[in-house]
Amino acid sequence: MAVNAGSSTNIIVRLEMDKQKIAFGQMMTAIGEAGGEVLAVDVSGIAKQTMIYDLTISLNPILTSSVVAQMNGLVGVNVIKVSDQTMLMHLGGKIEVNPKLRIKNRDDLSRVYTPGVARVSMAIHDDPSAAYSLTIKRNTVAVVSDGSAVLGLGNIGPLAAMPVMEGKAMLFKQLADVDAFPICIDTQDTEEIIETIKRIAPAFGGINLEDISSPRCFEIERRLIEELDIPVFHDDQHGTAVVLLAGLYNAVKLVGKRLQDCRVVLSGVGAAGSACTKILLSAGVTDIIGVDRCGALVRGQTYDHEAWDWYAEHTNPRLKTGTLSEVIHGADIFIGVSGPGVLTASDVRNMGKDPIVFAMANPTPEILPEEVEGIVKVMATGRSDYPNQINNVLCFPGLFRGVLDCRASRITEAMKLAAAAAIASVVQDHELNENFIIPSIFNQEVVERVRRAVMEVAYESGVARRRDLRAREGHPLQM
Amino acid sequence: MAVNAGSSTNIIVRLEMDKQKIAFGQMMTAIGEAGGEVLAVDVSGIAKQTMIYDLTISLNPILTSSVVAQMNGLVGVNVIKVSDQTMLMHLGGKIEVNPKLRIKNRDDLSRVYTPGVARVSMAIHDDPSAAYSLTIKRNTVAVVSDGSAVLGLGNIGPLAAMPVMEGKAMLFKQLADVDAFPICIDTQDTEEIIETIKRIAPAFGGINLEDISSPRCFEIERRLIEELDIPVFHDDQHGTAVVLLAGLYNAVKLVGKRLQDCRVVLSGVGAAGSACTKILLSAGVTDIIGVDRCGALVRGQTYDHEAWDWYAEHTNPRLKTGTLSEVIHGADIFIGVSGPGVLTASDVRNMGKDPIVFAMANPTPEILPEEVEGIVKVMATGRSDYPNQINNVLCFPGLFRGVLDCRASRITEAMKLAAAAAIASVVQDHELNENFIIPSIFNQEVVERVRRAVMEVAYESGVARRRDLRAREGHPLQM
Repeated sequence: MAVNAGSSTNIIVRLEMDKQKIAFGQMMTAIGEAGGEVLAVDVSGIAKQTMIYDLTISLNPILTSSVVAQMNGLVGVNVIKVSDQTMLMHLGGKIEVNPKLRIKNRDDLSRVYTPGVARVSMAIHDDPSAAYSLTIKRNTVAVVSDGSAVLGLGNIGPLAAMPVMEGKAMLFKQLADVDAFPICIDTQDTEEIIETIKRIAPAFGGINLEDISSPRCFEIERRLIEELDIPVFHDDQHGTAVVLLAGLYNAVKLVGKRLQDCRVVLSGVGAAGSACTKILLSAGVTDIIGVDRCGALVRGQTYDHEAWDWYAEHTNPRLKTGTLSEVIHGADIFIGVSGPGVLTASDVRNMGKDPIVFAMANPTPEILPEEVEGIVKVMATGRSDYPNQINNVLCFPGLFRGVLDCRASRITEAMKLAAAAAIASVVQDHELNENFIIPSIFNQEVVERVRRAVMEVAYESGVARRRDLRAREGHPLQM
Repeated sequence: MAVNAGSSTNIIVRLEMDKQKIAFGQMMTAIGEAGGEVLAVDVSGIAKQTMIYDLTISLNPILTSSVVAQMNGLVGVNVIKVSDQTMLMHLGGKIEVNPKLRIKNRDDLSRVYTPGVARVSMAIHDDPSAAYSLTIKRNTVAVVSDGSAVLGLGNIGPLAAMPVMEGKAMLFKQLADVDAFPICIDTQDTEEIIETIKRIAPAFGGINLEDISSPRCFEIERRLIEELDIPVFHDDQHGTAVVLLAGLYNAVKLVGKRLQDCRVVLSGVGAAGSACTKILLSAGVTDIIGVDRCGALVRGQTYDHEAWDWYAEHTNPRLKTGTLSEVIHGADIFIGVSGPGVLTASDVRNMGKDPIVFAMANPTPEILPEEVEGIVKVMATGRSDYPNQINNVLCFPGLFRGVLDCRASRITEAMKLAAAAAIASVVQDHELNENFIIPSIFNQEVVERVRRAVMEVAYESGVARRRDLRAREGHPLQM
């Protein structure tokens, strides 16, 4: 997997130097000869014979290992640690827990802690729904992973998943002012994960499941939705589905088709693929063919995966069989949530008029945009270095902002559809073109539109539990 | 239980007024007549016939209910909610989760989230101890409760425990820059609590157990210490014990006795009482008699509680039997962790020369200081409105700061003793007197002294896992 390191050009090298064996100038010369430039020298420790330095070195990232090797090769030098800017941004973690107000004196303390807090606790004891007013529950989401399917890295475990969950918590706060805390669970047993999340639920107003492998993620999400009274959302499934649908709304508008009339072929019937299919069915699409290792899934067959059986039962009304290249003939839309190279240019040529291709495999799509230039009409990927990035960041901040603000007990299918339409609506008709079917993740309009759309549906459908304050925006106290 | 509301004088009343039935002036008059003064009027909502107002009213707190009754008694008025300042300080909770740095552009995003974060995750996957550098683990503590013994309120459950745990998290951050997050567990089964905490442990560098009832707290703490590689500390037990010992160090110094030579009688052999006794035994005290409902605990008897059997086995070397009033004859120190009124002035008269009384029952001590004025030599309570408050806040912030800074795997008995001595040392010899044996919780010296003392012992005893950087304080990078 190609992991792009970003444009790091500074590294920090911590090393121990024996004053008797090497002069500082020799070190500087060696670094310069290897292609690095020392920007700063900090003394990090002093012993009798040795000094520990942190050297900040500017270099072309591809020279990192040779510069370090050069330094380590000097007599009397021992390189302890090398950090680049990405690593340095993670030092000590990326989030912190802060008091909302400062305790300035004994009187403050007696209100926020004992003895005053006792009355607040008793108010919640008397009326549990008061926890939404008087605790962090109102604004706090758990970002939960077991580390079993982290990014494209696979099963790397809960500790290694932490940086991703912390990053997600950063986005929650910065984009939607949602307080999110990472909970990385040290078990991969379905029942144990379910019971652990249920037990820690009191503090939280919502649960964002993340990077949990299929098929366990289905059962975990289904059961938690059933057994908890707060919204539970597996972002890898439904976040992808919502943003995909948003992109498709605008893509079909551009080519002048109705989404319901489109023939869709989807490659990769895993967690995300199933969720994408379900949201399309909810949106009125009927002709969807799912393709996986076994070819097109079709009613009447029996499959290894329970999810595939369900899929075959609910899709492929024309009962098509065969490979992806066979069933894609005449399709209006291709959706890829599988792997690199699955789709060929000739497949796209065999699609219907104005083909729409969403090749979302990460980091390498099912087909690269440059391979189908001139053939495809609208192309989207999961990548930030091509136009039309299908990125979950467009969905989860506004979605959770909305469900927290109206205290929704769950996230319904209608709320997801509304979120998709809201995201699509940010691109205005006069702006819409092949390279702009989906707003940028930095567009500040997205969160507010998604929030309002989700709340609207939540109030209409009765899953919102907070008094309807939509007409009273901006009132001074949120009580 | 008398819950002191603090000195609240403002309340906010949300009410609905029918414009057809009552004029605003009538309302103002009614409030004034009942003893309140309206400081501010905010419109919170508008309907056809009614308005919703938030009135900020200044009053003597004892008038609250009569003022509200007066308002509610008016035709056309419906009081929706009454909040005082303590409640208002809790609105929306008392802590928040913030990013440490702001994502300003795509480049930042690609470092703190995908794709750059993948390399950070893999670094932890390759070397799990790197989580201490690259995630929040280094500085983050879980404040865990099941809500079974919250303050003096009893078993009020996890949701109602939240305001207390949030308050504790505030103190952790403000006093010691520790990030603490409340985990309120929705089960009171010992095994389920243990396994839940173990499963969520990856994100945390320490576990602070809080307000879990006895005897479950003993097993929960013992097992977690054994089965986790991060420090686990039940504050109700050991925090109290450490601060008690700190106070005793200075109290005996004041009366010119050696702690080891003192005869101690302790009332209330529960979680805190057992912990206080254990730390005294560790500090070299031998003559301790524990008294509970059954009288003095003595070897050879069999008791209902396992903890009492242990207690009888390890204390009371002179095998004294009888009531508190009987066994207290000649004692140097009384320690109360029981309930109000347990100790009488005549009991104190029967103690040895210069009696030391730590009456720590909350909120009403075993005996009130005014009842033994002139009889007792040194008196301490758990209350902030008498001198010498024995308050856990003196211990946990510095203790966890220390164990996090040196990455201790556990908190040993020696570390607790060192923490007690460090707290005591803040009161200098020339300052020491009957009304000043323990520093104020606002004394900023306390955290740093406790931290250093704890780290010193952790490094000496080998439980510290971080490279010893004590000699290199203030170096620029904490890597």
